[in-house]
Amino acid sequence: MKPRVTGEDIPRHRFPVDPWRLIETEPNTTDLGLTETLFAVGNGHVGMRANHSESLRAHTPGTYVNGFHETWPIVYPEAAYAFATTGQTILSVPDANIMHVSIDGEPLTLAEADLEHYERTLDFRDGRLDSDVIWRSPAGDRVRVHSRRMVSLMHRHLAVLTLEITLLDRSAQVGVSSQLLNRQDGDGFQSTRHGDDPRRASKFNRRVLVPEVRRHIPDLGSGGEVTLGYRCERSGMTLACSYRHEIVGEGPMTIETVVGDDLATTEFTIAGSPGSTIRITKFVTYHVSRHVTAEELADRCASTLVEASSLGVVHVEQQQRHWLDGFWSHSDVLINGDEPAQQAVRWNLFQLAQATARTDNQGVAAKAVTSGGYEGHYFWDTEIYVLPFLAYTNPDAASQLLRFRYHQLDAALTRAGELSQRGALYPWRTINGEEASAYFPAGTAQYHINAAVVSAIEIYVNASGDLDFLAHGGARILVETARLWEDLGFYHYDGETFHIHGVTGPDEYTAVVNDNTYTNMMAQFNLRYAARTVTWLSESDPEAHEQLRTVTGLTDDEVDSWNRAADAMFVPYDETLAINPQDADFLDLEPWDFEATPSDSYPLLLHYHPLVIYRHQVLKQADVVMAMFLRRQHVPTELKRRNFDYYDPITTGDSSLSACVQSIVAAEVGHHELARTYFDQSLYLDLANTHGNTEDGVHVANAGGVWAGLIFGFAGMTDDGDRLSFRPRLPSGWNSMTFRLLYHGTSVEVTVDHVGCDVRWIAGPSLPVETPHGVVNVSGDGVLRLGADR
Amino acid sequence: MKPRVTGEDIPRHRFPVDPWRLIETEPNTTDLGLTETLFAVGNGHVGMRANHSESLRAHTPGTYVNGFHETWPIVYPEAAYAFATTGQTILSVPDANIMHVSIDGEPLTLAEADLEHYERTLDFRDGRLDSDVIWRSPAGDRVRVHSRRMVSLMHRHLAVLTLEITLLDRSAQVGVSSQLLNRQDGDGFQSTRHGDDPRRASKFNRRVLVPEVRRHIPDLGSGGEVTLGYRCERSGMTLACSYRHEIVGEGPMTIETVVGDDLATTEFTIAGSPGSTIRITKFVTYHVSRHVTAEELADRCASTLVEASSLGVVHVEQQQRHWLDGFWSHSDVLINGDEPAQQAVRWNLFQLAQATARTDNQGVAAKAVTSGGYEGHYFWDTEIYVLPFLAYTNPDAASQLLRFRYHQLDAALTRAGELSQRGALYPWRTINGEEASAYFPAGTAQYHINAAVVSAIEIYVNASGDLDFLAHGGARILVETARLWEDLGFYHYDGETFHIHGVTGPDEYTAVVNDNTYTNMMAQFNLRYAARTVTWLSESDPEAHEQLRTVTGLTDDEVDSWNRAADAMFVPYDETLAINPQDADFLDLEPWDFEATPSDSYPLLLHYHPLVIYRHQVLKQADVVMAMFLRRQHVPTELKRRNFDYYDPITTGDSSLSACVQSIVAAEVGHHELARTYFDQSLYLDLANTHGNTEDGVHVANAGGVWAGLIFGFAGMTDDGDRLSFRPRLPSGWNSMTFRLLYHGTSVEVTVDHVGCDVRWIAGPSLPVETPHGVVNVSGDGVLRLGADR
Repeated sequence: MKPRVTGEDIPRHRFPVDPWRLIETEPNTTDLGLTETLFAVGNGHVGMRANHSESLRAHTPGTYVNGFHETWPIVYPEAAYAFATTGQTILSVPDANIMHVSIDGEPLTLAEADLEHYERTLDFRDGRLDSDVIWRSPAGDRVRVHSRRMVSLMHRHLAVLTLEITLLDRSAQVGVSSQLLNRQDGDGFQSTRHGDDPRRASKFNRRVLVPEVRRHIPDLGSGGEVTLGYRCERSGMTLACSYRHEIVGEGPMTIETVVGDDLATTEFTIAGSPGSTIRITKFVTYHVSRHVTAEELADRCASTLVEASSLGVVHVEQQQRHWLDGFWSHSDVLINGDEPAQQAVRWNLFQLAQATARTDNQGVAAKAVTSGGYEGHYFWDTEIYVLPFLAYTNPDAASQLLRFRYHQLDAALTRAGELSQRGALYPWRTINGEEASAYFPAGTAQYHINAAVVSAIEIYVNASGDLDFLAHGGARILVETARLWEDLGFYHYDGETFHIHGVTGPDEYTAVVNDNTYTNMMAQFNLRYAARTVTWLSESDPEAHEQLRTVTGLTDDEVDSWNRAADAMFVPYDETLAINPQDADFLDLEPWDFEATPSDSYPLLLHYHPLVIYRHQVLKQADVVMAMFLRRQHVPTELKRRNFDYYDPITTGDSSLSACVQSIVAAEVGHHELARTYFDQSLYLDLANTHGNTEDGVHVANAGGVWAGLIFGFAGMTDDGDRLSFRPRLPSGWNSMTFRLLYHGTSVEVTVDHVGCDVRWIAGPSLPVETPHGVVNVSGDGVLRLGADR
Repeated sequence: MKPRVTGEDIPRHRFPVDPWRLIETEPNTTDLGLTETLFAVGNGHVGMRANHSESLRAHTPGTYVNGFHETWPIVYPEAAYAFATTGQTILSVPDANIMHVSIDGEPLTLAEADLEHYERTLDFRDGRLDSDVIWRSPAGDRVRVHSRRMVSLMHRHLAVLTLEITLLDRSAQVGVSSQLLNRQDGDGFQSTRHGDDPRRASKFNRRVLVPEVRRHIPDLGSGGEVTLGYRCERSGMTLACSYRHEIVGEGPMTIETVVGDDLATTEFTIAGSPGSTIRITKFVTYHVSRHVTAEELADRCASTLVEASSLGVVHVEQQQRHWLDGFWSHSDVLINGDEPAQQAVRWNLFQLAQATARTDNQGVAAKAVTSGGYEGHYFWDTEIYVLPFLAYTNPDAASQLLRFRYHQLDAALTRAGELSQRGALYPWRTINGEEASAYFPAGTAQYHINAAVVSAIEIYVNASGDLDFLAHGGARILVETARLWEDLGFYHYDGETFHIHGVTGPDEYTAVVNDNTYTNMMAQFNLRYAARTVTWLSESDPEAHEQLRTVTGLTDDEVDSWNRAADAMFVPYDETLAINPQDADFLDLEPWDFEATPSDSYPLLLHYHPLVIYRHQVLKQADVVMAMFLRRQHVPTELKRRNFDYYDPITTGDSSLSACVQSIVAAEVGHHELARTYFDQSLYLDLANTHGNTEDGVHVANAGGVWAGLIFGFAGMTDDGDRLSFRPRLPSGWNSMTFRLLYHGTSVEVTVDHVGCDVRWIAGPSLPVETPHGVVNVSGDGVLRLGADR
């Protein structure tokens, strides 16, 4: 059995407890990369890592624009037919964060500076990163430097940086060098540890961004407006970025702007006097495109800056607060009785806001826009981990993510063809819709990505009641994914059972197996949901049904064949252990020798050849247990418990996708302490850097998993499409937990305590809730009281 | 069921029938690459493809030296722990074949020339390639050009090229440009077809051979001696090559030699007169090393040329004939009644001679020294397909190949450690002893390479009686390979059966499976043979036994554990079909839809993603059937037949390693026509280019398979270590077949006809032969008559 992490072992983060902020009280000198991630700001479209504006020193500085990527031919040392051929890597875009400060020519270098005061704050309600230092310069004079950074959650293309410098002791020449820097290493993503760590992004050794635009519209009072534009050499994507300053302050000033291909600098030299504050606001904008020229994007940048200036920084900041007020009113989860957990929960929810606010026509990358980790690729993380949160708090955003998958359906149809299959096969990892996984046993073989997309559709439609999306987009995805399953699987020669072979389930510590329980259960769901939806459509919307038939060539026989396959679907079950084997052969594998595995040999993937891992009973992450979660309404609790009890001791949790799921199912089967332990592992995964790689970006799926752990785990919520139900089981250390949901347009507040929960209507139509005595509709001032699950 | 190739479908080659020669009667214009391979000459150390000396045009010109390779870091788009890191690629060495001819300044270009006569002959007894043309020059004058090429089977480092030019009509200036050319493309291996064909060698895009030596020792009468020396940039291997000419002929002559880094040329201009012959002999030598400098190799080249010159070309040619007389006296197989087959058999045997005559301390690459195909790597091809031929015809050569594996044991120990295993794991493909397979499911996962080495040891020791090798080399290999198996496998929790999971068997159309029948049977053999050998050693040679214990740390417990594992070894068996499933899950896989597979979709690996192939019941090559061959003394014929009948219809034969094995087992189980069909597929595989890639080199393993098909298939020979037995089953189209063997120092001749066979003693001790009436010792003039197997 693997060494179990207990609640006591989980390192809490080292930041002061505050319910609405993450605060750093001294400069980080040891793990800059970690705080660059934890304090990053973004809006799902643009993201800025939290390298200090004032400082030269950074671990992995970078600004990212969701989906802005370069392609490259994947070269295999030994290739085979239909291997993925197009690598896709998100690029760091030119960095506008840099605003170096000097006093009388002495540069402020945080790492070496004599600081009287230091505080950096990420505020979850203001949506801003503020840094405040009082610096004693080598000449002995104190200077207060306050910098503020915001990526607008309202305005997709806008970021605002503000620098306030106050001389506290005497007059001096204040210098500010404000830059826009295209780092020559292209993807701007470097790390020295783990040379072979497959979770890292690859690097280019060529110029990737070809300069196309270099504009400077001078302005005496501000240094003018600067725009740099580029084209990606291979992908052809274009980018333009601009900045413009506003200066408030006394004293004579010189401003000089120099613009090169890869560096634009506006140098301010200001005669500062003690007590007065010099304030420089830098409006920054990024526009990217797959279609239009960098020149045209440069024009769009100009428009954005005009709009931002006319709004003014104060108003932009107010809008940010307003947006977040709205966010928290739908999405907050109050933890009563555990302030550190409250803070950590809010940090995770804030990450979800920053990952999804403005994704618009893109997906959510594994690290959102907090780094180039995992090459900026979209995985099933979005559908399984992030989308449920959105479905119940921000259905518009959920809908957009599903439409994004709809737009990539053609590429998925093509990919299925390459794999000799009918229907559609979504890529395991992608930006542009093409499969980018260069290791098929843990990539393309994860056919279950299809079911993840479909599961997200079901959750979204159940939560929102948006049948229009189902009829005019979702249905086509359902048809094409069901087709793939029906074609991929086959009937055993006895004709009675339907099998799916040669696939990899969620657990990447076995690969290319037969009848993976998770995959078969999810495929079964996918087939049935597709069949049900087509039938429903034929009855409720004949026109949409006919259109679907035309577009997909669907026949009635086909729908029957899906139901037949679903009915005949083989789900492995072992009579002796009374559990679901992870796959047809899993129980026959040799047990992993956990006793003989040193603690520094985790994660196993960095210390053992895949062949060694694959042939043992050892899991990277929840697999059958994941199925117990996603199909929880369809599995008896006793079976869930037996499965959990079998797999939990052999699940390493080497994947960050595991802890939250283990937590939910542990709660479901009554292992309440373990549920809390796994929840804490999930909650502090990034904040305490328990996986050691938060420097490579926020684990966004895990942040979604924190929400899922609260709502599906501790509140025990399930959704049958027309009603919600709750089986509350609050962790013993908490007094209560309160959260809000949107359900079919109804806003509802749920408060969970140790004896049950209250369901309170807030706005919208009445809410059907399942109780032991049948469905009750909650509305008006009525509060529905439900008992606890233990 | 796959479309069966019948005897009628096999394209015979298009060359004239001749029992001792391969003859080309007109210039090849369509598939130069094919004839460059078929007419190649070599001695196992140096090999020269049959590009025309006189002509500029070639498909894949090249000269190769066995084991002379460059290394390169294998870069994976998605790497994992302990993936092979060092790529190894054989290089084409500077080519000395080129001797261009011109008459009065008009160059002879075979492809465009007006030829009155053309003949090219590879003579299996002279060991020479002769080309004879009569050319009508643009001026209308006829010239006879005869060129001759030989790589010495006696002198490892020596090749001799001879050019004879006879003006038939009138006097003219005869020009000969004799070169030594280092082609800048490094590995000299290019092909335009099959861009992604994994069977092709990869290419370098850098200078690989760094010039180190450039020598010219002038000599007025011959143009002097030229030496070029190089060092491989990364592997550090060194190379030197030299040439020197001898000229016989009348008329004034000018000779000029120019030496550059990558090209040395000696230009002869001779005033020729009609009827007299100008003869230029070019002695060529290659020396390579892993240790000494190119300078030192240059000195060795000089010695080789001195020796060759002093021998003289006539004597060198006589020695070649002498060597081959010896070869044929031990190795020939006479086919009475089928001249085309006779020729083809001899061509294949001649390839074995050319592949193994002088390998010395190297292995035999998949294409020997006939091209850079498969990057010049050594596979199990040597041990399973080539070594049995050597064991019974040239035991010294067999012993050297096994010692080569012994020298690579340390690397195999290291590799096992990387795979978290005790003992030794031989690399699936290598030159320098390190694993070079960059696709582990069809590379490192083929653990059965260990058993292949051990099987070859058993065959060699059985055939030769060389117990000294077993005691002082073989035993250590046995111990370390048995260790790996015992550590790799495990006991099922019932404690009764021993399983080996996560391996790939010989058939590469399934990968990383559990309990591959072939692997388990061979591992069982390996474990038992190791245990038996250690026990024997402890009894017969305590000193060697003690030494073995010291070197390997072997304990008595360990030997017991091998026997236990072998006894408990799980060999899949299906009661219903009464066959051995290829692996634990094979029979549960979906049948491949052969009906829906177009004939141009073979080989499947070039038309289907591995995931598609892996999840179906379809074989690339013999797997269980291979086990039926190698373990044929231990499997009942009925089981062999049932296995053959099950697997044969689903075996595509996409691997060139398949047909010969199918032939042997078909013969064994009484499918005599099918045995002949498969034998013919094997026999003409290269000559008729049935796999379409003979341009990439001779399929040497298949050539060994031709011999195996004759001896193990049609003569039904088995060897129990102390006696031979025969179960003759001659193909119906042949009158008889006669071959010779060496067995424990005894030379014996066997003649097979349709009613049985005669076993005749030739020399050495008496030969024990098993008969229905017990073992009979054959000696003197006695002829043992045995009945046929049908």
